[in-house]
Amino acid sequence: MGFDAAETIIYRPIGYVQNAFAQPTSGSEIGAAESRIVLDSDLVEGLKGLAGGQKIVVVFHCDRAPGCELMQHPQGDRSRPRTGVFSLRSPRRPNPIGITVVELLAREGNVLLVRGLDALNGTPVLDIKPA
Amino acid sequence: MGFDAAETIIYRPIGYVQNAFAQPTSGSEIGAAESRIVLDSDLVEGLKGLAGGQKIVVVFHCDRAPGCELMQHPQGDRSRPRTGVFSLRSPRRPNPIGITVVELLAREGNVLLVRGLDALNGTPVLDIKPA
Repeated sequence: MGFDAAETIIYRPIGYVQNAFAQPTSGSEIGAAESRIVLDSDLVEGLKGLAGGQKIVVVFHCDRAPGCELMQHPQGDRSRPRTGVFSLRSPRRPNPIGITVVELLAREGNVLLVRGLDALNGTPVLDIKPA
Repeated sequence: MGFDAAETIIYRPIGYVQNAFAQPTSGSEIGAAESRIVLDSDLVEGLKGLAGGQKIVVVFHCDRAPGCELMQHPQGDRSRPRTGVFSLRSPRRPNPIGITVVELLAREGNVLLVRGLDALNGTPVLDIKPA
């Protein structure tokens, strides 16, 4: 079984993030901030069983990540030595997938209100799972 | 910002899973089993900083998942009522992304030896992150 560099995997957004972050900000600000995840209304049945108060995993596509670098300074801090991208959570990775555990505050129809999502406004959401 | 059903997101495998599982098996078997993740050799620099003994998150594409169902019996157990796919970890989801925290046992070049990966032999790997 060899490596097939030509293989492509195609996903479609299940929804989008709405929040106040148009550009990257510090982790502490985001940890406290609320975001809305607006789900494709055709998928709303899939939210059954999720309730406010639980933790969920949000998988999203970092659509504004500026390409990949295999070796990076942790958190962009040039005083720290570069290390491999797979030992970091930087969005500048081969497939710019973000994964964050957030608190589900409430659900109303196809909208999830969450706290702690470190994704920019307009980010496509790929999946939601129980934490 | 509306929902764009036509948007597509394209990823490429960073590597593939090698193990003894040609078809789905029970969680307990997989929890103890070892798998190899064979990374694209062009990406090997990105593994720097990962070492045996740590936990890593493996993100993979469930390429043999038989389509999506929005409402499913938990673990396929028909005695339990159906619930929404986003409250379950079933691979039959809109975007069949699997996410598992595994133990990295060792790394040798572009090969990671891990324990606890619930992915079938040949599964494309999309990302690796520190847990």
